[in-house]
Amino acid sequence: MDLQTYICAKMATMDPGRSGYGIIEGAAIVCDDALIVWAGRFADMPERFRKAPVTDFGDRLVTPGLIDCHTHIVYGGSRAAEFERRLEGASYEEIARAGGGIVSTVHATRSASEDELLEGALSRLDALLADGVGTVEVKSGYGLDLETEMRMLRVARSLSDHRPVRVRTSFLGAHAVPPEFAGDADGYIDVVCAEMLPAVAEAGLADAVDGFCETIAFTPAQIARVFETAASLGLPVKLHAEQLSDQGGAALAARHGALSADHLEYLGEDGVAAMAEAGTVAVLLPGAFYTLRETQAPPIDALRAAGVPMAVATDCNPGSSPLVSPLLAMNMACTLFRMTPLEALAGVTRNAAHALGLGDGAGTITAGAPADLAVWNVGEPAELAYGIGHRPLHARVHGGRLV
Amino acid sequence: MDLQTYICAKMATMDPGRSGYGIIEGAAIVCDDALIVWAGRFADMPERFRKAPVTDFGDRLVTPGLIDCHTHIVYGGSRAAEFERRLEGASYEEIARAGGGIVSTVHATRSASEDELLEGALSRLDALLADGVGTVEVKSGYGLDLETEMRMLRVARSLSDHRPVRVRTSFLGAHAVPPEFAGDADGYIDVVCAEMLPAVAEAGLADAVDGFCETIAFTPAQIARVFETAASLGLPVKLHAEQLSDQGGAALAARHGALSADHLEYLGEDGVAAMAEAGTVAVLLPGAFYTLRETQAPPIDALRAAGVPMAVATDCNPGSSPLVSPLLAMNMACTLFRMTPLEALAGVTRNAAHALGLGDGAGTITAGAPADLAVWNVGEPAELAYGIGHRPLHARVHGGRLV
Ligand SMILES: [Zn+2]
Ligand SMILES: [Zn+2]
Repeated sequence: MDLQTYICAKMATMDPGRSGYGIIEGAAIVCDDALIVWAGRFADMPERFRKAPVTDFGDRLVTPGLIDCHTHIVYGGSRAAEFERRLEGASYEEIARAGGGIVSTVHATRSASEDELLEGALSRLDALLADGVGTVEVKSGYGLDLETEMRMLRVARSLSDHRPVRVRTSFLGAHAVPPEFAGDADGYIDVVCAEMLPAVAEAGLADAVDGFCETIAFTPAQIARVFETAASLGLPVKLHAEQLSDQGGAALAARHGALSADHLEYLGEDGVAAMAEAGTVAVLLPGAFYTLRETQAPPIDALRAAGVPMAVATDCNPGSSPLVSPLLAMNMACTLFRMTPLEALAGVTRNAAHALGLGDGAGTITAGAPADLAVWNVGEPAELAYGIGHRPLHARVHGGRLV
Repeated sequence: MDLQTYICAKMATMDPGRSGYGIIEGAAIVCDDALIVWAGRFADMPERFRKAPVTDFGDRLVTPGLIDCHTHIVYGGSRAAEFERRLEGASYEEIARAGGGIVSTVHATRSASEDELLEGALSRLDALLADGVGTVEVKSGYGLDLETEMRMLRVARSLSDHRPVRVRTSFLGAHAVPPEFAGDADGYIDVVCAEMLPAVAEAGLADAVDGFCETIAFTPAQIARVFETAASLGLPVKLHAEQLSDQGGAALAARHGALSADHLEYLGEDGVAAMAEAGTVAVLLPGAFYTLRETQAPPIDALRAAGVPMAVATDCNPGSSPLVSPLLAMNMACTLFRMTPLEALAGVTRNAAHALGLGDGAGTITAGAPADLAVWNVGEPAELAYGIGHRPLHARVHGGRLV
């Protein structure tokens, strides 16, 4: 075993077996190439680890490497001009007529080569990594045809060939009704279930299956068909639910044992109860709330009271959340949703891991967890969520190695 | 003359003599050590500049170096724990009783050495510089006694010894009533006017004089006394006005020929008219609006209609705006205040220069302006305000040199 030991003044283990941040002072973390082998007080470190090379992070804080569990970082084109036109007074109709909105991203993604998609995704990924991300979830959903959806997922999978990062992919064919199926959402869902999902599963390109349950997207009945097909293929599910209205999407997802239901601004009591019952994670996306100037926040108090695990993610996408900073997502979760800094950090570590179905202590600093750490130029974990637009990352440890 | 030439596919000159961003494609900028000597189309560059060394920024966008015209980056202590306690449910009273709020920053600043203040300020300044800032305004106002206010201003002045940046200082003695003068704001203003302001002016430590006109701070009559003393010492004035209520502060500032009135959420029609009449710049601070979850935005439409120049700044401070990203301030100005990306960029360049009383084309790329540029990994200027938490800076040119 090729071991490395990292020591620091303080670490926030996020160990659910400890209270709060799971703080350990005078800490040591022993890693091999993949896993944390031992973590605790340096003074308590077993003799057998004392020969491993030591990196001393001094008075810096160490946390688990961050996990951004909901992103759409693979896409073609830019929506900056649309952002500008809207602020100059253009109506949504005018922008739609000028080819704007999600359709413009679908067109640009379909016409982009794999290399072009990769280049754009890497620029956004680099921003996430600079904020301490070690694991990123990436969705398809701007192709809306088999070829482009597969291309998006291949690009997503390939990100870890180019950067020290773990990638989880979600197939989001049921993101929007493509132009070819305008007025025939059921016909498109037929294709998603009969052709796209089996092909994606066969190619092993998706770790989960996602959808968008909303009046402007798909009905609960349509999403249920996608979920049933996913189950038949052995793929876990998750859902964009209750973002703009209460469609009962979260309860539907919970009934299908979903890993997570995401957004949730309009989640009602029944949805909270169903999620608590099923152990479905609430993935909160304050970047979209902020960008859309939404005024109804997700029911954080009810989720907290019901014991629903809460994750926080960037939702990085070109339309409703061009946000590439999980630290800023944490600040927004605190400022806009009134989550605590502890909940925000759990939301981008331990609970984000649950939202992706990662096991083995992922998102914590405990023996057996992936050897991914973030090292910060701060003294206390609350500072991570407190700063706005700051860049406190000192370094990352990925797969046991300093990167 | 030791000249340098920079070329790029596109520059946003922000030249008020041109429309919009003042875009020039196939651009060249000739700089000496201090000033822009010539700027225009490379094809039109006079023969005499053709021997200068050339740096090619390729297809990147060049803008004026950004100007953050309202910050409080020199202070002691941290308010992260207070941020956390409040989100955990502590009331403002409980936090105040525990020594929180601005008083905690005053205590921490008074007890900090010059070196400690410098170290903290540099960490925040580095974040601003990484966002393309070339000029930063820094206020005192956490000392509230002569010795500490002078120490803050000396530290602010010294920042340009440590980093390639231009610094403008504002004396903000009238920021809050210090604990020693509780219940006697007039008595404190006596000291500000009779002792502090003359000493600061004598030491040449302030480029302007600022104050906070608000029910929780100082009355218009008290601020007027500060402004009159500043005028007698030949110092220009500016004011924190109409942040929480309409006190008539902006009109007062305009009557005193203020460079700027800042915040302005509760600015009324009279204030807008007075500012337009006096040429007082409106400095908009969306970071504080966001952090305080304010719901009333400044009257952007009225300011625009009246032709009041609008600047945008971070207001970086430990309590109401721990924001260290002018790009994020631009995005917030667009998203929360519905300014356009063009107005946001003018707000951190040309209009920010006006808010600081900088002349000679500061904040534009024109001959005779300071040779400060920001070079961006984007194609269009709208992308600067569109991204959230992104870091598109490629490099800066400061005093004619690449840094
Ligand atoms: Zn999404
Ligand atoms: Zn201020």
